[in-house]
Amino acid sequence: MSEIKEECGVFGIFDDAEAVKKTYFGLHSLQHRGQESAGIASSDGEYIKCYTGMGQVGRVFRPSKGFLEKLENPTAIGHLRYSTTGSSNPLNAQPFLSEYSQGQIAVAHNGNLINANLLRDEYEAYGHIFKSSNDTEVVVHLLAKPTHVSKPDPLAHVLNHLHGAFSILFLFPDRIEAARDPFGFRPLCLGKTKAGKYCVASETCAFDAIEAEYIRDVEPGEIVTIDKTGLSSRFFVEPGTVTPGHCIFEHVYFAKQSSRIFGDSVHEFRKQSGRVLAQEHPVDADIVTPVPDSGTSAAVGYASESGIPFDMGFVRSHYVGRTFLAPSQELRDLAVKMKLAVVKEAVAGKRVVVVDDSVVRGTTTKGKINSLREAGAKEIHMRVACPPLVSPCYFGVDFPTKEELIANNRTLEEIRDFLKVDSLGYISLDGLLSCASLPGDHYCTACWSGDYKMPVNTAFNKLSLERHQMQLFDNID
Amino acid sequence: MSEIKEECGVFGIFDDAEAVKKTYFGLHSLQHRGQESAGIASSDGEYIKCYTGMGQVGRVFRPSKGFLEKLENPTAIGHLRYSTTGSSNPLNAQPFLSEYSQGQIAVAHNGNLINANLLRDEYEAYGHIFKSSNDTEVVVHLLAKPTHVSKPDPLAHVLNHLHGAFSILFLFPDRIEAARDPFGFRPLCLGKTKAGKYCVASETCAFDAIEAEYIRDVEPGEIVTIDKTGLSSRFFVEPGTVTPGHCIFEHVYFAKQSSRIFGDSVHEFRKQSGRVLAQEHPVDADIVTPVPDSGTSAAVGYASESGIPFDMGFVRSHYVGRTFLAPSQELRDLAVKMKLAVVKEAVAGKRVVVVDDSVVRGTTTKGKINSLREAGAKEIHMRVACPPLVSPCYFGVDFPTKEELIANNRTLEEIRDFLKVDSLGYISLDGLLSCASLPGDHYCTACWSGDYKMPVNTAFNKLSLERHQMQLFDNID
Amino acid sequence: MSEIKEECGVFGIFDDAEAVKKTYFGLHSLQHRGQESAGIASSDGEYIKCYTGMGQVGRVFRPSKGFLEKLENPTAIGHLRYSTTGSSNPLNAQPFLSEYSQGQIAVAHNGNLINANLLRDEYEAYGHIFKSSNDTEVVVHLLAKPTHVSKPDPLAHVLNHLHGAFSILFLFPDRIEAARDPFGFRPLCLGKTKAGKYCVASETCAFDAIEAEYIRDVEPGEIVTIDKTGLSSRFFVEPGTVTPGHCIFEHVYFAKQSSRIFGDSVHEFRKQSGRVLAQEHPVDADIVTPVPDSGTSAAVGYASESGIPFDMGFVRSHYVGRTFLAPSQELRDLAVKMKLAVVKEAVAGKRVVVVDDSVVRGTTTKGKINSLREAGAKEIHMRVACPPLVSPCYFGVDFPTKEELIANNRTLEEIRDFLKVDSLGYISLDGLLSCASLPGDHYCTACWSGDYKMPVNTAFNKLSLERHQMQLFDNID
Amino acid sequence: MSEIKEECGVFGIFDDAEAVKKTYFGLHSLQHRGQESAGIASSDGEYIKCYTGMGQVGRVFRPSKGFLEKLENPTAIGHLRYSTTGSSNPLNAQPFLSEYSQGQIAVAHNGNLINANLLRDEYEAYGHIFKSSNDTEVVVHLLAKPTHVSKPDPLAHVLNHLHGAFSILFLFPDRIEAARDPFGFRPLCLGKTKAGKYCVASETCAFDAIEAEYIRDVEPGEIVTIDKTGLSSRFFVEPGTVTPGHCIFEHVYFAKQSSRIFGDSVHEFRKQSGRVLAQEHPVDADIVTPVPDSGTSAAVGYASESGIPFDMGFVRSHYVGRTFLAPSQELRDLAVKMKLAVVKEAVAGKRVVVVDDSVVRGTTTKGKINSLREAGAKEIHMRVACPPLVSPCYFGVDFPTKEELIANNRTLEEIRDFLKVDSLGYISLDGLLSCASLPGDHYCTACWSGDYKMPVNTAFNKLSLERHQMQLFDNID
Repeated sequence: MSEIKEECGVFGIFDDAEAVKKTYFGLHSLQHRGQESAGIASSDGEYIKCYTGMGQVGRVFRPSKGFLEKLENPTAIGHLRYSTTGSSNPLNAQPFLSEYSQGQIAVAHNGNLINANLLRDEYEAYGHIFKSSNDTEVVVHLLAKPTHVSKPDPLAHVLNHLHGAFSILFLFPDRIEAARDPFGFRPLCLGKTKAGKYCVASETCAFDAIEAEYIRDVEPGEIVTIDKTGLSSRFFVEPGTVTPGHCIFEHVYFAKQSSRIFGDSVHEFRKQSGRVLAQEHPVDADIVTPVPDSGTSAAVGYASESGIPFDMGFVRSHYVGRTFLAPSQELRDLAVKMKLAVVKEAVAGKRVVVVDDSVVRGTTTKGKINSLREAGAKEIHMRVACPPLVSPCYFGVDFPTKEELIANNRTLEEIRDFLKVDSLGYISLDGLLSCASLPGDHYCTACWSGDYKMPVNTAFNKLSLERHQMQLFDNID
Repeated sequence: MSEIKEECGVFGIFDDAEAVKKTYFGLHSLQHRGQESAGIASSDGEYIKCYTGMGQVGRVFRPSKGFLEKLENPTAIGHLRYSTTGSSNPLNAQPFLSEYSQGQIAVAHNGNLINANLLRDEYEAYGHIFKSSNDTEVVVHLLAKPTHVSKPDPLAHVLNHLHGAFSILFLFPDRIEAARDPFGFRPLCLGKTKAGKYCVASETCAFDAIEAEYIRDVEPGEIVTIDKTGLSSRFFVEPGTVTPGHCIFEHVYFAKQSSRIFGDSVHEFRKQSGRVLAQEHPVDADIVTPVPDSGTSAAVGYASESGIPFDMGFVRSHYVGRTFLAPSQELRDLAVKMKLAVVKEAVAGKRVVVVDDSVVRGTTTKGKINSLREAGAKEIHMRVACPPLVSPCYFGVDFPTKEELIANNRTLEEIRDFLKVDSLGYISLDGLLSCASLPGDHYCTACWSGDYKMPVNTAFNKLSLERHQMQLFDNID
Repeated sequence: MSEIKEECGVFGIFDDAEAVKKTYFGLHSLQHRGQESAGIASSDGEYIKCYTGMGQVGRVFRPSKGFLEKLENPTAIGHLRYSTTGSSNPLNAQPFLSEYSQGQIAVAHNGNLINANLLRDEYEAYGHIFKSSNDTEVVVHLLAKPTHVSKPDPLAHVLNHLHGAFSILFLFPDRIEAARDPFGFRPLCLGKTKAGKYCVASETCAFDAIEAEYIRDVEPGEIVTIDKTGLSSRFFVEPGTVTPGHCIFEHVYFAKQSSRIFGDSVHEFRKQSGRVLAQEHPVDADIVTPVPDSGTSAAVGYASESGIPFDMGFVRSHYVGRTFLAPSQELRDLAVKMKLAVVKEAVAGKRVVVVDDSVVRGTTTKGKINSLREAGAKEIHMRVACPPLVSPCYFGVDFPTKEELIANNRTLEEIRDFLKVDSLGYISLDGLLSCASLPGDHYCTACWSGDYKMPVNTAFNKLSLERHQMQLFDNID
Repeated sequence: MSEIKEECGVFGIFDDAEAVKKTYFGLHSLQHRGQESAGIASSDGEYIKCYTGMGQVGRVFRPSKGFLEKLENPTAIGHLRYSTTGSSNPLNAQPFLSEYSQGQIAVAHNGNLINANLLRDEYEAYGHIFKSSNDTEVVVHLLAKPTHVSKPDPLAHVLNHLHGAFSILFLFPDRIEAARDPFGFRPLCLGKTKAGKYCVASETCAFDAIEAEYIRDVEPGEIVTIDKTGLSSRFFVEPGTVTPGHCIFEHVYFAKQSSRIFGDSVHEFRKQSGRVLAQEHPVDADIVTPVPDSGTSAAVGYASESGIPFDMGFVRSHYVGRTFLAPSQELRDLAVKMKLAVVKEAVAGKRVVVVDDSVVRGTTTKGKINSLREAGAKEIHMRVACPPLVSPCYFGVDFPTKEELIANNRTLEEIRDFLKVDSLGYISLDGLLSCASLPGDHYCTACWSGDYKMPVNTAFNKLSLERHQMQLFDNID
């Protein structure tokens, strides 16, 4: 399920002899959260250095360029940005380094500010100029505002101006500040290395990558400061004044199986969702196969609950294939198959349960089902580990439009017919929420329910900030 | 298991309107057979054009370069070369295009000629000059020899001079000739598109990629000609005069799960090997986890046979991480973890059966076991889907030296102790051979038995051809 | 004489079907004014597009990248930035495109603002943030200030805040505004194409390049607007309130021989300076040779006045040679010779008059003199077409420090001794000024007299804006 | 005059601590002889290393790539290849390194073998295969032939097979052999460093570049060996059996002004040709201007002989401008002006003598004349320092076809009319030959007389070797 894009991952570590290289490893483990650009900013306690580039972290920081060495400093933050097919803009790569009256600052942000446009218009009216089409730049303008600078806690003051999702790291020359919006839409976790150095990351898998231990989450509405005195905390909104709205789609699809987020294991959540799916939509079949990799954990759960043998009906390619302009329908069909091949012998003549994490537009799923049918599957029973998607996300996920979502205006039977499967079962929202340990209302489920945690202006979208952005750039190859 | 390198994959298709783009798709599906370089040669019936480059096929033929369009022709062959960590040499990229008295020829070769050095010395004595350190160049010199040119069937005559493994495609302006050594070490298959065009590939997964149908294998000792008259066949050694020696390691590790080779499904072979492993080395445990992806099919088989639940204890990264010069042991340890993360919740407190396809040096396996232990696995039972590796390969696989193979001079107990597992079980050679449908002596099993299909000069290795090769090249980034 | 660097060249053209390509030709003809970066911004009347890159204009806009086509629009401005040996910073490339409350703006600036630091500090205190270390960014901040935006003529108001040298182009979506500081330090000229389209450029050679006609200079203190209504003018300081201070070093060295600046032909100025030099410092000799190319016009004048035959004793290399880390003095000496070779037969056994435009540190000149001596010159008489350089420039020229200038604390005899020439003659300041048609006090001659046109804070230098700038960048190769 | 392309320059040095870096400097000074590719091969006495790349030597060996260091060895040869606008082929870059029965060999060749095609066909019939479309590859095949290897002096034997122009360096692991064809078409000189190390180069300017001293030319028909025993000589054709045919066009245009070739100073030759031109074609005028740089020396001579003042009416751009596809005639006209600007004030209202080294197609010259006229020149008198070009060259110069040469089928008056000049004068062939110190029949003057030094097959041209060459390559940017 590659049609929905996460927006960004962050990592930071304070006062570690290998801070920059550990940030590299941390980012690499979070690479699934964004492949468009990668960057690292580091501080020697007095000055900040920064390097950002287009592409995956392994390419941006390839050894021949030597940037990991050039950045060497005891404190660092890093950022990954998601990949779009359209125009990519190096100005939007993060960490976003700038200078204002209080000195240098680098910011790494995961989320989406729904009032970024309003704030930008306001600051332009104050006489500010903007270089990027990035909502993160707005945050720095707020921090730089003289009336904000003079507040007792300028950062807490500024964060109260922001509406939307933000799990955000600020690197000042002498400290890292990590903050999370009051709903806690996106995950943000604290860790500690064996040597007792604090680190912070979007997901706990980044701690595993550097052999650090997970301590706890940064709480919704909390600012955690990591500096020479250790770790300290304060809240920019009083805790408990708002019910959290963790993005449950992180559990369904975005987060890595090996991570813990929002207090639960991602893998266990997904396996349990497979079990619930088996209870809600049992079927008589010969094998259960995931659509790898995102459906694998749920398929293991389905197989275990149903007693139907698990098998690998698909094999995923580990290699990148570039798309060229395919002049014929035949070639376009072939191009789709590049990422996923069917294992004929596993499915031929069998009644197959296919477990996937979600169905978005439906076209990709239809292609996979068709491949199974051509390989000789006798019956195909589609099981989806999340409810039908009907509403876009304004809190950090790059969804198709409402019109493109297959479940938006079709009955279950119409979808089944479109996908050409013998049966189709989505997990229920209650069933899905039952897999998590927090109460159901602590999660944002708007993409299934259309019920958002805060008012959103649906006319707003991420492109509005890019309306006049016309700096041209070289493509990276 | 990434320590053993396959040497190359080939693909060819004759007289198809989309020949070059299908060759691209075919190579992409065979990418697991070689990532160092990729190339395509195409013919318009009269002249051959060729482009080769360093890196994966998706990079070499990235759309911005336009080479797929520049090569457009109705007939094409393609080649992938394996990846080494050392110096890579653009001169060795294939197809190898040259010109001799009979005109142009392009060659794409998968395998290894154990007498290439002898032949090269001989031809240098005839006054020939050599540009590459590639054994494929030797084949063209043989074809160009005037006494060979004048034979009734020069190609058949020349192939009789070659000792070793070769699944090889020759593109002449007007035809493709596909040949396989008399032992059939490496796979080579024939297919046909829906429109009735013939194609040839290292594995059948390439036919799936272009929606072609598998017809049959090119037989050991056979030359298949594809030209305007269709497909015709001849043998350069009389069939039946030698027992085949198919490389069973193709089944164990190299080939793609979705392929059929040597008459069997790779996935079914591996799943069956898991079942046999469960029979030969049963254990009481809580979960069975593969080392993905190469151990997955065998793990499914082990779980199914043993009744122990299958689960995903590891998650593999899909992203490339470049290695830099790690100045400390701590960083080197972290670098190893980049490719594989443990799913703690799946293994913590559990008795875990780990199924992998093979153990080579042992150091990588040891690292993975250690990660499991740190994640809290209570017991670890290692099960290996091939017998202990003790001898190098001279027929197209890039093995470590005998001394580096952990099983070469250690007892089972010593290996178990080295890996720090609670129990260790290798499948028996007979058990492994029982998974294949051909008689056991139709396979080359020398890497486990040291019993080669033909005499080999162990002093010979692939580097000998590179002894004086000192053309320097730019690194690709 | 390559030790002194010009800071930038600009070009603009309004409403021309080939505006972008003519801007390319214009910049190419001005390339001597800056080789570090090049850029073009263009407008369709409503929106501005911009592309900038590191290196010469021919490289930045090489056809394979297609940026000239992507920028195609009827109005365009372009910019060249000078080359330094140190770190180059893509953020400083111009035109500088940004967005503020009034919409888009692109700025191309030649000169240096001596109060940029003060203004930046002031605007940071207002809450502004800065991305570049470029004084041009400061200008846009001034324009964006709300109290400035509301002025009847915001641009004129803002320009009054700037101290220093500026020949500056502003591209608004609907117009070009071209302004020049009240002293007119740097040249800025207006032209008209055969089709009657207005253009503006640092030097008239850019008009020759696009077959446009020179009309007049933009006057000191003037703003010229080019828009749909044609060309209009206003003054942001009342004309005549200050005596101009044209940089006479433009005539001596920077400007192209084929240009007219400050009302005079550069070539004629230089030739006349050679004549004056011959009158002031006659000598009995066999040939007059220039140090090409900057000394050529003066040498022609010297030869003509003295009657001594002109000959080419040096030949300049047209090719770029990169310097590597030369491990020995021998290699360092050779590296210096790469740019200039001596024609032995022209100088051997002869009494040679060498004419150069200036002597800066003296070391390069000494090397050339030494080469002449080794080639067999019998006598060497050095004639310098500008007075001894003793003071740095704060108005747009990148000089060595005062300490590095050879004439700063040495007598004429000491310099002669250092250069090892038989005689040494500098033109007098009065002699030099006599070559120009304006009164002597209309020129800035501070580099020879130390007498600046306005108070300068000598602690200030261009690096001060770069004090905390630590964004890292890829090198271009 | 950039319409005629030289084919290559060579440099070699034996047993010098800085051999590779001196080869770099030597090649840089010879860069005018070829800009398409550059390469250096070096030997440690036992093995040869080689690196070649596309573009100028300063780019191929830019320090960031580190190849000068990787090649470090006490003996080296280097090569420059000329630049064409068409397809460039990395396989043709030299030195050409290969391996044959006698070990490694690297070859650097300046010239053209008129029987390369015949030899290649012959060797293909012997069973040889070819990778490049380069006549140098043929030479190595000849050396490798077993019946040649067994000769007492294989190299001398082989050189007797070659027809055409060759100034050629062979780097064997233990020595450099430098040979020159019996007519001595191209220059080849011997030098000695201050430390007594021998070097060899196409022109003496390369010795100046490394502070070596010119000793003598390699004689026509001579092989000079430089090895541990010093310098030794032999002749592969008996000296005196053939009258030399030095390419006098080297004096007219190719060679650098600072070089000595064929026993004469290039600068003095050209200056003298200007004097002769003034005697043969006097005119009453105000200034003499060269077309820089190749016409400068002759213009100095013309001015000196005629007493008309020398001035610089043109200024040449030192910067590379890439050509894009100009959609209109207006843009194409502008593109031509990029390389040369007119100094209006030097020519306006004047009677101008324009001295150029040659006129090839006439179109470029016509453009320059037109620019002068537009700048206000009152009269234009064209003086050409070589006779009318009527025949192509088969000995190492890349001429337009006979049909494209303006003088081929036009009278002097027709040419004058085409160029739109007031008068036109070519130097006579006798006049030109009078400027050289050797007898007139010691030079090849075929491009003016059509009288070749040996029979040529006019159907042959350099492209014939490229007839089937279809390896595709990346463009360099």
